[in-house]
Amino acid sequence: MQQTEISSVGEFGLIDRITRDLPKYNESTIKSIGDDAAVLNYPETEVLVSSDMLLEGVHFDLTYMPLKHLGYKAAVVNFSDIYAMNGTPRQITVSLGISARFTVEHIEALYSGIRLACEIYGVDLVGGDTTASRSGLVISITCIGDAGKGASVGRDGAKDTDLICVSGDLGAAYMGLQLLEREKTASAGQKDFTPKFEGKEYLVERQLKPEARRDIVAALKSEGITPTSMIDISDGLSSELLHICKASKTGCRIYEDRIPIDYQTAVMAEELGMNLVTAALNGGEDYELLFTVPLHNHEAMQKMDGVKVIGHITRPDLGCAMITRDGAEIELKAQGFNHMA
Amino acid sequence: MQQTEISSVGEFGLIDRITRDLPKYNESTIKSIGDDAAVLNYPETEVLVSSDMLLEGVHFDLTYMPLKHLGYKAAVVNFSDIYAMNGTPRQITVSLGISARFTVEHIEALYSGIRLACEIYGVDLVGGDTTASRSGLVISITCIGDAGKGASVGRDGAKDTDLICVSGDLGAAYMGLQLLEREKTASAGQKDFTPKFEGKEYLVERQLKPEARRDIVAALKSEGITPTSMIDISDGLSSELLHICKASKTGCRIYEDRIPIDYQTAVMAEELGMNLVTAALNGGEDYELLFTVPLHNHEAMQKMDGVKVIGHITRPDLGCAMITRDGAEIELKAQGFNHMA
Repeated sequence: MQQTEISSVGEFGLIDRITRDLPKYNESTIKSIGDDAAVLNYPETEVLVSSDMLLEGVHFDLTYMPLKHLGYKAAVVNFSDIYAMNGTPRQITVSLGISARFTVEHIEALYSGIRLACEIYGVDLVGGDTTASRSGLVISITCIGDAGKGASVGRDGAKDTDLICVSGDLGAAYMGLQLLEREKTASAGQKDFTPKFEGKEYLVERQLKPEARRDIVAALKSEGITPTSMIDISDGLSSELLHICKASKTGCRIYEDRIPIDYQTAVMAEELGMNLVTAALNGGEDYELLFTVPLHNHEAMQKMDGVKVIGHITRPDLGCAMITRDGAEIELKAQGFNHMA
Repeated sequence: MQQTEISSVGEFGLIDRITRDLPKYNESTIKSIGDDAAVLNYPETEVLVSSDMLLEGVHFDLTYMPLKHLGYKAAVVNFSDIYAMNGTPRQITVSLGISARFTVEHIEALYSGIRLACEIYGVDLVGGDTTASRSGLVISITCIGDAGKGASVGRDGAKDTDLICVSGDLGAAYMGLQLLEREKTASAGQKDFTPKFEGKEYLVERQLKPEARRDIVAALKSEGITPTSMIDISDGLSSELLHICKASKTGCRIYEDRIPIDYQTAVMAEELGMNLVTAALNGGEDYELLFTVPLHNHEAMQKMDGVKVIGHITRPDLGCAMITRDGAEIELKAQGFNHMA
């Protein structure tokens, strides 16, 4: 494919190319890219704002992460934060730091992923910044969304006896990362290397193309259930559950045998000789929803597709623990996915 | 001063330290740091959103930029974008990428500058992201603000015969950068080096501690004047004026002898053997406001403190040009401050 040096089109030329023919999905978007600020309108809702930064070599490795996937993921993880507030994402701003090795076509590929995510989730790209970077790709996204007045759900509303629920399954994205790293190591120095992903496609997809669980937010709404607290699992179940308990001033009990884990995740953990439950508790980037609902919603939660009740909230003095298969209590710790460790 | 390794307190420990006792200045801030998203409320205004990214080695040099000043500047340049829309900044999210050489105290110094700017401009710090970086400091800020319904001013409203106005003076921040770079070079390898800033304090201050022109936005409001277009000068007068003319589909004429330039800027240009007008036209980071008003506001603009009328808008077929002191017409070009060049 033809590659165009960014310096040959300049910053404004690049911006023109990547923001051409932007669609508009939301009434709340009044004025988009092309001025000092975007103009939005939210007369009847709460406005939600969330920001995330992704750095090359820390959060992603372009050896196995295609730029289009990276763009998609960078957008979706921001949408996930807004859904985790019981909201709907409406706009994003995208700031990019671009080092000299990237061409116009590379940045177009990245943007094609961002735009695909925006299309699928109905979000408008309304602004951002594009600048040179001395060292690798930097992506910083801010997502703006809305929730009905008083309808946003934070981390701080969990109550004693509430049920703890989680969507999807856990640990697969982390196992996908281990798999991709393994194949990267195996491929070093080899030409025509074919990575072995057979039977593990789900793990790779969870790592490279995560989705935000708007379906769960919609299902809860259609059942008339408002969670008492909610968070998305980006740093691992343990860490997120501790956030909820700390903010809500509660304790919790979850049950090892109820933690949802996919078959492929289990096979991969076995292959790598890793503890499966540790991966499910502390592996990052699941982007599933962790939430609490009042006890009387038990039946509704058991019927809800893609959701599992994994435990319950307790008084704070009982602490935060997991009950293992053999009945032992293990204290939960946030050993999670900490890039600063 | 005692230095604390960030790894010893962890990401959440760091966030706790830098976001302790955050004040709240705005009614529109419902819920701040500590959840997946901030919650805001804008029932009766337009919402303005603007994002900027600053990268070490590209936008700032910590050799002469103290971290507190950097934090202040990073926040203020974002506020400037909101004022340039005829709005008021209300909230910011701050995402940081931090490399291993930074300590907790460094990041606290950076935040003390951000918080000082927030205090002076009445803006709430409501969220962001904090992560490791492999290479230097990365700062990405999104600013949210408001303007009355239909009151925001973009780049696209300038009309033939409108007056072109600029606040403050131009080129000083660019000259400050040249001065700082010169002293950095002079200091190389020397101990106890004292940089020579005497008589040039204004230039250094314009580079290290710019302010956003909310006073001009307020003065226009109190005169009952709404600009037809407005932009802040971050990439140089030429480049910004071309943005207005392109968006508004007009031409323009500005007059060399009316471009406001400080005495210190002129002295420094002389010392460095640089063309003074080129510096004023293309030097970046002035963060002054460039705006257009209808011709009948001429008298009011001439009386307004800190504002100068430098030319007028024309029909598009006349192009964009500067009339020099000797009456020649020079086409305006956006050779500006382009980090991607």
